[in-house]
Amino acid sequence: MRPASLLLALAVPTIAVGAASDVPVREPPTLASVLAAAGPDDWHTPDPADLVYFDLEGERRVIVELAPAFAPRHAENVRRLTRQLYWDDLPILRVQENYVVQWGDPDADDPGKARPLGEAASPLDPEFVRPAAGLAFTRLPDGDVYAPQVGWVQGFPAARSSATGEAWLAHCPGMVGVGRGNDPGSGNGSQLYVVIGHGPRHLDRNITLVGRVLSGIEHLSSLPRGSGPLGFHEDPGHWVRIESARLAADLPEEAREPLQVLRTDTATFGQLVESRRNRHEPWFHEPTGVVELCNVPLPVRRLPADGDTGAPPSR
Amino acid sequence: MRPASLLLALAVPTIAVGAASDVPVREPPTLASVLAAAGPDDWHTPDPADLVYFDLEGERRVIVELAPAFAPRHAENVRRLTRQLYWDDLPILRVQENYVVQWGDPDADDPGKARPLGEAASPLDPEFVRPAAGLAFTRLPDGDVYAPQVGWVQGFPAARSSATGEAWLAHCPGMVGVGRGNDPGSGNGSQLYVVIGHGPRHLDRNITLVGRVLSGIEHLSSLPRGSGPLGFHEDPGHWVRIESARLAADLPEEAREPLQVLRTDTATFGQLVESRRNRHEPWFHEPTGVVELCNVPLPVRRLPADGDTGAPPSR
Repeated sequence: MRPASLLLALAVPTIAVGAASDVPVREPPTLASVLAAAGPDDWHTPDPADLVYFDLEGERRVIVELAPAFAPRHAENVRRLTRQLYWDDLPILRVQENYVVQWGDPDADDPGKARPLGEAASPLDPEFVRPAAGLAFTRLPDGDVYAPQVGWVQGFPAARSSATGEAWLAHCPGMVGVGRGNDPGSGNGSQLYVVIGHGPRHLDRNITLVGRVLSGIEHLSSLPRGSGPLGFHEDPGHWVRIESARLAADLPEEAREPLQVLRTDTATFGQLVESRRNRHEPWFHEPTGVVELCNVPLPVRRLPADGDTGAPPSR
Repeated sequence: MRPASLLLALAVPTIAVGAASDVPVREPPTLASVLAAAGPDDWHTPDPADLVYFDLEGERRVIVELAPAFAPRHAENVRRLTRQLYWDDLPILRVQENYVVQWGDPDADDPGKARPLGEAASPLDPEFVRPAAGLAFTRLPDGDVYAPQVGWVQGFPAARSSATGEAWLAHCPGMVGVGRGNDPGSGNGSQLYVVIGHGPRHLDRNITLVGRVLSGIEHLSSLPRGSGPLGFHEDPGHWVRIESARLAADLPEEAREPLQVLRTDTATFGQLVESRRNRHEPWFHEPTGVVELCNVPLPVRRLPADGDTGAPPSR
């Protein structure tokens, strides 16, 4: 008897096609059936002012969605840096196995050589947490090692505490944070990192998360690892250059990518979470019955070029 | 004020130098201080019969330690396959973002073209769980979303249930499993996968884990992602070839790599876990107070070539 060549169940967080809202959700739901049944209103088009396109050399694009609901000052700084072309020709400095990829100005610590921050504010007060009040929070019922409650806010993995009344973003793969030194207030958004390994949730509330990668994370996670301490490249010859970074809002409409993210405050998303708590794909022997925050996919789709997917999605 | 260029705390699970047992552990412990204070008896030399060296084209070596305590039948099959040179010239078939890298025979499903399994048994009864009795289990006190108890057994992340009396290995990054089809008994060890993203713990008890990568995981995790479903490469031109796989026990002594793993049943390891539960490096603002199973590093060291690190380590 031969082993089947298709092994392990689907775990693809990005789908490429539009929704077909006339496909009924079968019971029990699977990720595939939930997404097939999602309607236009289940999808959200991010604000172009919150989308940064980082174009790496070699035609590799990484799209980051900022999270101003959690880090308004840092999101605004990233917008300002982007608009003054701060990132253009800066390198990816660090690729640490099972941890983070980081980019920024290699001379940031040298006042004589550092690239000017221009209109960007520096330093910025940290945005490690914010008040939980006022945030629509979709709660995951399965608990968490690191936080009293976890779930999602506006498409981002998040946590909160009723004891402190605080909410914060969670370090799941693909989350984008603001590098800082030992001083909690030393970050400003000019050094950014992306989580590429097991979610380092111990960084939660220790550093400002400012967004997440919607597209192209494979261009970062598959980079050769840096050989120096913390995965920094010792040889600048190993840097990968950022050719340009642009805010989608500053591009003509036709140059913007038609990305949508699945809303996390809908019945459809509730079904998606359920489909991951109890796996009903035929491959599964033990359906588990629970799921961890960072193992719930947050689907992103690319609309067809002609855009004929029905009514425009709303938040 | 400029941001410091060294950002985020140390999370390197592999260290390169020998132990210096005369360095006292300072209070409170950090990962660095715990490792500096570890003595020779804190380290374990894996059995060469449990080590497989996968040499990929381009002089990239991946070393896997088998876990016969949990999967004796599958470990033995992997040894047999290795000894009959089953892997030589087979490719890496699949690289799925934030999930797994998998290798094996691309023709495994075609009886006319499949590489013979020879002395290896197929199919094998699954080894998803085993009795917890008889295993020295170092328990993590911080709970877990997926299992009643988690911790470590003989250097591997594991879980157990007092209700069922079962124990099993846990899908943390670097863990190596045995691909299978929908039939739980359809795996045999001829298709192997390695976790490269956030620990897909929902696979626990659904598939046989047979070991973990001790060295060289970056050669797998940094591979370009496959463009087909589940990350399989659609174009065989994108396959990476395994030049050879050899059991360390079958190599002359001088060709074996002097790797040691930190024991997980010692007071030193208890301090290491504590150093990760409460982070005392100056960078940390909020020490967290807990840690998740897959975020505890399992250090591996390479002894100096002259081997002069004192007494030989014991289990």
